[in-house]
Amino acid sequence: MAALLLHSVNRSAQITTKHCFISHKGTAGRLPAGRSRRGAALVLAGAAAAAVVGFVANAGHFQRAEMASRVIQVAKQDDDILEKCKGFMSLPVTDVKVLQEKKGEMCTRMELLIMETQAEFCRALEKVDGGKFKADRWQRKEGGGGISCVIQDSNVFEKAGVSVSVVFGHLTEEAAKQMKSRGKVLKGKDGKLPFCAMGISSVIHPKNPHVPTVHFNYRYFEIEEEDGSKQWWFGGGTDLTPTYLNEEDAFLFHNTLKEACDKHHPQYYPDFKKWCDRYFYVRHRGETRGIGGIFFDDLDSPSQEEAFSFIRSCTSTVVPCYVPLVYKHRDDAFTAEEKRWQQLRRGRYVEFNLVYDRGVKFGLATPGSRIESILMSLPLTAKWEYTHEPEEGSREAEMLEVLRTPREWL
Amino acid sequence: MAALLLHSVNRSAQITTKHCFISHKGTAGRLPAGRSRRGAALVLAGAAAAAVVGFVANAGHFQRAEMASRVIQVAKQDDDILEKCKGFMSLPVTDVKVLQEKKGEMCTRMELLIMETQAEFCRALEKVDGGKFKADRWQRKEGGGGISCVIQDSNVFEKAGVSVSVVFGHLTEEAAKQMKSRGKVLKGKDGKLPFCAMGISSVIHPKNPHVPTVHFNYRYFEIEEEDGSKQWWFGGGTDLTPTYLNEEDAFLFHNTLKEACDKHHPQYYPDFKKWCDRYFYVRHRGETRGIGGIFFDDLDSPSQEEAFSFIRSCTSTVVPCYVPLVYKHRDDAFTAEEKRWQQLRRGRYVEFNLVYDRGVKFGLATPGSRIESILMSLPLTAKWEYTHEPEEGSREAEMLEVLRTPREWL
Repeated sequence: MAALLLHSVNRSAQITTKHCFISHKGTAGRLPAGRSRRGAALVLAGAAAAAVVGFVANAGHFQRAEMASRVIQVAKQDDDILEKCKGFMSLPVTDVKVLQEKKGEMCTRMELLIMETQAEFCRALEKVDGGKFKADRWQRKEGGGGISCVIQDSNVFEKAGVSVSVVFGHLTEEAAKQMKSRGKVLKGKDGKLPFCAMGISSVIHPKNPHVPTVHFNYRYFEIEEEDGSKQWWFGGGTDLTPTYLNEEDAFLFHNTLKEACDKHHPQYYPDFKKWCDRYFYVRHRGETRGIGGIFFDDLDSPSQEEAFSFIRSCTSTVVPCYVPLVYKHRDDAFTAEEKRWQQLRRGRYVEFNLVYDRGVKFGLATPGSRIESILMSLPLTAKWEYTHEPEEGSREAEMLEVLRTPREWL
Repeated sequence: MAALLLHSVNRSAQITTKHCFISHKGTAGRLPAGRSRRGAALVLAGAAAAAVVGFVANAGHFQRAEMASRVIQVAKQDDDILEKCKGFMSLPVTDVKVLQEKKGEMCTRMELLIMETQAEFCRALEKVDGGKFKADRWQRKEGGGGISCVIQDSNVFEKAGVSVSVVFGHLTEEAAKQMKSRGKVLKGKDGKLPFCAMGISSVIHPKNPHVPTVHFNYRYFEIEEEDGSKQWWFGGGTDLTPTYLNEEDAFLFHNTLKEACDKHHPQYYPDFKKWCDRYFYVRHRGETRGIGGIFFDDLDSPSQEEAFSFIRSCTSTVVPCYVPLVYKHRDDAFTAEEKRWQQLRRGRYVEFNLVYDRGVKFGLATPGSRIESILMSLPLTAKWEYTHEPEEGSREAEMLEVLRTPREWL
């Protein structure tokens, strides 16, 4: 960590090297534990998402790009993780040496998984777009950091962000209070709860109104209670927000997610599909944000191994459930009226993200958060027209109808 | 009220008549009382603003425009109020007969004041723009209603909204709870608090980035406690959000407000200027929304008469503190870069309104609110660029500096 801090000289550093290097820092306690949290359902979603999406710190502490010259060569025996690192968008947040030492631990395995997912998704998007992601590496003063990859105003994408973060420390009193108010009682030592959280979060806003917007987020959370017991859980989901309804796309998207879910539990898809419709709901409009997908939180069963395996299945669907839709529609013709409708729908996207999304709310309320990573999810452009109402029988009205009455797609 | 409901046939009715007509409805108790609420300061701002801006109900209950044919002629002796009504953008919310009967009451005087202010401001904006406001009249099922006047994508203004509302009924448990959580203990009969609230609220987003955005809101609130005692108070403010700093404009704007304040109390301007800077603060950005103005709430002294006189002074500054700036800059040349900076600043405006504004938050959380009137304040278009940072020494950086460190303008 010391090495990283020494290099923190620029607010917006583009990572140009893929080499790994070593420094020395501790990691938070990472023992798995299986205390059931069923029924607490959405309880920790806010904090979990925030810890991952938003708990991201001091915008002033970015790391400069020229790391290649400072890279410390890692010994040959560390080949496997080192090899993996070379394919990432940036160095992992945790030092390679620490990852090597703690190879078998869930935090290490999850960090490598989200780094892999980020690289895989970014590469696939670069291929379909023709542009290049800018990778910003940032540090959280209190522990951890992240890598935010963004393409803006490119060929296919108006704004595409894929962000990874790995953070640890102690939950603030506010955070703990928020958890408790949601029904979750967590007892900390002197009111402090050591935690460790990591995740990947992405929102893709394409230019063409016939290419849907996608969002996904997968995260892992560990928290230590007063008595030393550790709780862990996974959360996440993938959901689609089209401007216009395309039933074939909806089927492909949901079916890809269902296949991933079905490998693990027959109830996962139906339950997590419903959960997704409930969560991404713009209450004041009486509309869902999009046509859903899956959403879950607090997943701590049947075992840590099996839960992680499910997360791996989910992250591996990210490319196949979305990128084919981009290829299919990126060259579709569109009218000014269709573009206008897309802008209006983006206004609703902004409303959901700023008014309801628990991760965003928690992140914005957390001092030292990296605001740019939290609000990376907002579209480049959006529109609000007073009393806009689509014509009856129009494709715009058809889309609204689906948002007001969520459907089964399979 | 029955007459109004009979005519509720259209969601978005443009009022084309200025005639007044009569129906029969009661009004909530309106006795003034002077119990001090100093120190509770911002306490009721959310609920007050919401009751006025957002407590606005059932979007399905709009009133049709063709009322001229149904107008019941009001007797000659009602000439004064009737004459006033003819100049309004629409009929007042309260029936003219009721207004006549309760001529001397504060609710009547305030309703007439906000209707006058709406007409005066809209006419002045129409003159500088060349376009025409569309006046939507809507009803609140639970009691009251409003008139929302909007110009969109016109010559000078991208979006300009001036909304009046007059609502009454009982505070919901959620509303009461919100008040209590802010430190205000209000005892209701069986948990219910009869209230009456009215106000005018406006946000003007011009097209030219050299014409600033303005916002104002003036409101009156009455609430009845369990023991029958009534509390009343006024709140409001006017504030300016320029895209680029113009010190001459800032001086004119603040000075006009100060002159209005100084007629009533030498501490009003300095206190309310500070309050404005504190309230319109985008915490997660560490920036104020604009260059401020005045903001106050909970004004219940020295007497109801004097407080109302102050509100009248404030509403009468709305045209002179803003419209000259529109004339001055509406034809200024601007670059694409300046337009881009305006769009980015509007993104921040959206962030403030959706994340922090108590009136908006309360309104969105209130079932049956008229969402279009609450979100009328959002710009037609806005932009979010990832990690945008103005160049050092640029006019954009100069603007940011002022937002980060509020100044004294006089």
